[in-house]
Amino acid sequence: MTEAAFDVVGIGNALVDVIAHADDTFLTENALAKGTMTLIDARRADELYARMPPAAESSGGSAGNTIAGVASLGGRAAYIGKVCDDQLGRVYRHDIRALGVTFDVPPATGGATGRCLIVVTPDAQRTMQTYLGAGSDLGPEDVDERLIASAHVTYLEGYLWDPPRAKEAFLKAARIAHEAGRRVALTLSDPFCVERHREEFLDLVAGHIDVLFANEIEIISLYQVERFDDALQQVRGHCEIAALTRSELGAVIVTRDEIHVLDAEPVGRVVDTTGAGDLYAAGFLFGLTHGMDVATCGRIAGIAAAEVISHYGARPVVPLKGFVESRLRQK
Amino acid sequence: MTEAAFDVVGIGNALVDVIAHADDTFLTENALAKGTMTLIDARRADELYARMPPAAESSGGSAGNTIAGVASLGGRAAYIGKVCDDQLGRVYRHDIRALGVTFDVPPATGGATGRCLIVVTPDAQRTMQTYLGAGSDLGPEDVDERLIASAHVTYLEGYLWDPPRAKEAFLKAARIAHEAGRRVALTLSDPFCVERHREEFLDLVAGHIDVLFANEIEIISLYQVERFDDALQQVRGHCEIAALTRSELGAVIVTRDEIHVLDAEPVGRVVDTTGAGDLYAAGFLFGLTHGMDVATCGRIAGIAAAEVISHYGARPVVPLKGFVESRLRQK
Repeated sequence: MTEAAFDVVGIGNALVDVIAHADDTFLTENALAKGTMTLIDARRADELYARMPPAAESSGGSAGNTIAGVASLGGRAAYIGKVCDDQLGRVYRHDIRALGVTFDVPPATGGATGRCLIVVTPDAQRTMQTYLGAGSDLGPEDVDERLIASAHVTYLEGYLWDPPRAKEAFLKAARIAHEAGRRVALTLSDPFCVERHREEFLDLVAGHIDVLFANEIEIISLYQVERFDDALQQVRGHCEIAALTRSELGAVIVTRDEIHVLDAEPVGRVVDTTGAGDLYAAGFLFGLTHGMDVATCGRIAGIAAAEVISHYGARPVVPLKGFVESRLRQK
Repeated sequence: MTEAAFDVVGIGNALVDVIAHADDTFLTENALAKGTMTLIDARRADELYARMPPAAESSGGSAGNTIAGVASLGGRAAYIGKVCDDQLGRVYRHDIRALGVTFDVPPATGGATGRCLIVVTPDAQRTMQTYLGAGSDLGPEDVDERLIASAHVTYLEGYLWDPPRAKEAFLKAARIAHEAGRRVALTLSDPFCVERHREEFLDLVAGHIDVLFANEIEIISLYQVERFDDALQQVRGHCEIAALTRSELGAVIVTRDEIHVLDAEPVGRVVDTTGAGDLYAAGFLFGLTHGMDVATCGRIAGIAAAEVISHYGARPVVPLKGFVESRLRQK
């Protein structure tokens, strides 16, 4: 196995976030399920956008946020995802490259760059409606074999199971990574995403995934159990490392030999939970690819997540490297 | 004079803000003058954007921000400005219409929607580089005579003096407004803008403007005097109302018969001063078109400005109506 050129390469649906504030009546009037992600088509996206309050736009996409986080922590990162050469696509490319991330996937030729319409309610929960757009063009031809083989970890979002050809890209990348002796990480992404693909996710977790990220609702849904502890017992032994997040209850890290129960990092005020799971994965993978023990990985993960939920938007607004180092020194 | 259908119609350069955080070395390395607005061409905009950190996009433009503020306060508002029918133009149109603002100017057919590249330094100052794009297509043909005649106040940004044909639109709108017995308001916009157009601005203020907005540096530059008080004595008598802002020193409102010296509204933490002057004008004009005395207009203005500098971005993130009402009740 040669020296890795990258710490983490992420593959995901490249999306520009369109973030607006609204109260709960907006969710009920538009039949939106709070805290989840729903796929919508172009027409529904236009309809919903027309009803949304003024919004702000910024680069997003689950794995894209994670990769931005890894880079912000000082890690060497690359991204595979599909945008168009339109205004929002150029914004996406700019934002991720400005962090030093390698992002060389050629633009899609038709359609438009995908968008995630995000409504943040006063309780800081985010509700997401995604129009995949060019994101759904992602296919195995976009997976650069040398890039994958040169990264310590290939990180995949469960959302990739939605567009048909992205799944092929996903499986190709996992195969290349393992053949090169690297690790493959997956996030379950969303409870509805788990519902849609439970059988395939169960096979994946048992057979192809070394590092699993899931929140409490997702892991309970995956194993169709009643209690968090039941899911915990199931996932143990299914993959090398599972990092299970529980919002303000903290997180549990499970390996074959260890279990760590970590408290949530303190946050002044939770403003917008968008990106919490993405940045948790960023912190964890940064630690893991820098030789840290899993408990420290969990702490860095929690600190990165705490930064992103303290403001609007799904990517850090301060360089995470300094932020995490100063927090780690505090105790 | 018929009943007014609108409180305020604003005319300005329609721009999408591209906001990034950077420290002062970014300003010096790129020869940017802190706190000011510089006009740049498409090539320089591309070069500078490529060097900028990751950014967030949101609708901006000085008069556009003011009009958004008037609508957020519950006022009846309309906007005249020029975007393209591209992705950023559609964002612009959505954001302003979502507030209930009338915005019916047909899109420009060539070029791209204008952008303002904004760098916010840790001292909360914003430094702006503007590529006007489609904004520079604004001309007298875009000024809807009936719209102007039906608004209590026509509000113009000094930046309109930069693109050649916008000046004609500006003068046409001022003439229509006065013929209809309405008021014309102007903001001097920026000290460099005053430098570029001092003689014409002096004529304007003396002959065509009923309500003038300027900050301390701008009004001192306009009259080429040394002290704020000297400028104050000059502007008195030149226009019906002058609202002169002095950042943390508060503001001075001057009419023919009155002078009010108002303290700045308290702000928890100043995060980003982008939009401070724009929202000050919004609050003032809302009060003025709702029959309030100028001291109360000044208080509403200060409260609206305090909201916008407490977060990133140049438009309010909470409905200003409730925000201002609760602040006014406090004392």
